[in-house]
Amino acid sequence: MEVYLDHAATTWCYKSVQDMVVRTMMEDYGNPSSMHRKGVAAEAYVKKARGIVARQLKVREKEIFFTSGGTESNNLALAGAAWANRRQGNRILFSALEHAAVKEPMKRLKEQGYETVEIPVDRQGVLSLEALREALTPETILVSVMYVNNEVGSVQPIEEIGALIRENAPGALFHVDAIQALGKYKIHPARMGIDLLSASGHKIHGPKGVGFLYIREQAKIQPQILGGGQQSGMRSGTDNVPGIAGLGAAVEEVYRDLEKRVDHMYHIKELLTAGLNRLGETEKVVIHGMSLRAGAPHIVNVSFPGIRSEVLLHALEDRGIYVSAGSACSTHKRQKNTTLAAMGVDQAQRESAIRFSFCEETTEDEIRYCLQELERSVPMLKRYARR
Amino acid sequence: MEVYLDHAATTWCYKSVQDMVVRTMMEDYGNPSSMHRKGVAAEAYVKKARGIVARQLKVREKEIFFTSGGTESNNLALAGAAWANRRQGNRILFSALEHAAVKEPMKRLKEQGYETVEIPVDRQGVLSLEALREALTPETILVSVMYVNNEVGSVQPIEEIGALIRENAPGALFHVDAIQALGKYKIHPARMGIDLLSASGHKIHGPKGVGFLYIREQAKIQPQILGGGQQSGMRSGTDNVPGIAGLGAAVEEVYRDLEKRVDHMYHIKELLTAGLNRLGETEKVVIHGMSLRAGAPHIVNVSFPGIRSEVLLHALEDRGIYVSAGSACSTHKRQKNTTLAAMGVDQAQRESAIRFSFCEETTEDEIRYCLQELERSVPMLKRYARR
Repeated sequence: MEVYLDHAATTWCYKSVQDMVVRTMMEDYGNPSSMHRKGVAAEAYVKKARGIVARQLKVREKEIFFTSGGTESNNLALAGAAWANRRQGNRILFSALEHAAVKEPMKRLKEQGYETVEIPVDRQGVLSLEALREALTPETILVSVMYVNNEVGSVQPIEEIGALIRENAPGALFHVDAIQALGKYKIHPARMGIDLLSASGHKIHGPKGVGFLYIREQAKIQPQILGGGQQSGMRSGTDNVPGIAGLGAAVEEVYRDLEKRVDHMYHIKELLTAGLNRLGETEKVVIHGMSLRAGAPHIVNVSFPGIRSEVLLHALEDRGIYVSAGSACSTHKRQKNTTLAAMGVDQAQRESAIRFSFCEETTEDEIRYCLQELERSVPMLKRYARR
Repeated sequence: MEVYLDHAATTWCYKSVQDMVVRTMMEDYGNPSSMHRKGVAAEAYVKKARGIVARQLKVREKEIFFTSGGTESNNLALAGAAWANRRQGNRILFSALEHAAVKEPMKRLKEQGYETVEIPVDRQGVLSLEALREALTPETILVSVMYVNNEVGSVQPIEEIGALIRENAPGALFHVDAIQALGKYKIHPARMGIDLLSASGHKIHGPKGVGFLYIREQAKIQPQILGGGQQSGMRSGTDNVPGIAGLGAAVEEVYRDLEKRVDHMYHIKELLTAGLNRLGETEKVVIHGMSLRAGAPHIVNVSFPGIRSEVLLHALEDRGIYVSAGSACSTHKRQKNTTLAAMGVDQAQRESAIRFSFCEETTEDEIRYCLQELERSVPMLKRYARR
């Protein structure tokens, strides 16, 4: 049996996405910048995808810019906002929860003279609103907060944060990394006070190598990749039509029956959590993050103190079960479990943390099989570790 | 009949590319950064593609970095080299032939305080080696020259330029935009004195949204997109496995029987050129660029003075023939025919220029059909224009 429980790392593509990608690679393969019919046909796919995304977010089509993925979206949002608004101030805030694709650009901005301030999070992985309020000064030009954390699935009170920013630093742009939130939550940037929102295709059964950045019309952003002026000059380079069309198809499909899909994921999460708690009666098991339904529907992060993450990961892998130690979004050994560290989780628990992540197609049988393997492996591995 | 003669704008994908993309989207869909088997399998595709590219270029695998396309490769090469070497000097040279994906980053670098110098080209679209020699000073940190020009297909003496740089500004990095050259020429950066080489997938029947940058091991480059540290930290973001694997498949296929493919394209070019010359006996026809076999095998740029490019383009389109007015790589109306302008071609000829571009699958029948339509349309359109 093969059980893929690493959907927060990446997903397979929907069949509708495959069809769209193949059609735009093989038949409607034109360059949207070409003036002839082949170009116009290709452009129509881009326009259609932009429409799907804009309607889902309830924003204008011209506020959606396609990029090569979530990391580029984050980089464009942060460097783009910092450089475009540097006359207005140089203070930038970000949560301790952020992904490397936010934290690393922040380090670069700091080197370039910006004052970057990390806002702490609590034990559940939730941003301290009090600390944020105190940090918001008139010099603040940008605030970056992750919607759903990729390691532990904690969910931030985005609307409250948006309101807090409007109140205390009305000139600051609010950037939200929604890469793990898209397809799990209804996201309406205008209502939530979001100026910039990053998303990715491959976390929602869309293609890799494509994402988008929502940029509120009023937000000043300096483009980072320059050239032929595609994407209204905000992101040059021949439009990745198959990627963009595939992303559109994925957004359309993932938001169809969203409630049903999310309910199923919570059901799966409950099943797994109940099983882990049962295992916790005899073994040490620590589940991280927010309480079940308060956290994201697709992520469970749990420590089995005494068993190194990698050891359990490979034991499960031997049984065809694929999970993650920390997040897979950073390369292999680096920057592991930075969210758990920010939450104050001790080293023993950090080094034994496993992330299970699902999608709407994850079945009860798969979870039962996984729990059965955990019940078998955990006591055994602990015995080995003790020796 | 549908005749696509805009291969310099973009190409359809090879069947081998489609198969690779579908397999890595649907089956081997893992994240190469994941530690489990699914991740390792995905990583193997990236490794394989890197090997194909490195072997073709006769460089080390670790010198190949995958990007989201040619534009990003150019941006990374230029901004990356400028920023990493700014203590050494601030002078940057580039040819008047360059694509917007080089010229626009140059404008940004100029704003940031670099001294950017444009080297002129001759009537054939070839860089003046004399002007380059004079411009090369010890403060020069970077020289950027396009291998094959996308508008007129002129080919630069890359090896001579490389030698000239080594001689006159040994500290300068040599960047080559090889986006139109890959798959048409054997490119060996080490032998040619190239430090940085940009390439794209979708010009060689590979996927859109993927490209690579060759970075010579000794070259100092500052990464531009930061995050999880993928691509040895040079380009963060989850590897676009389908794109990368597809690019690898395209490079492999396009270089198989390269001579035969190129010979066929020259044959097609000769057929078209002969027909255009025949038409030139009764109509005004000006073919731009280098002499037939000296120029690139896949591009013919020709003016029909008195007929605006767009008019002829749409007349041909009505007969199912797709060509380009200027280059399609810049969006619709902007920055048109900048290469022709740099070559000193007058406005009347620039505004009536059409680019025909082929691939190895372009047939004699397609060219004959195209010529037949030109023989019919050109005199007719000229009569209309006169009224």
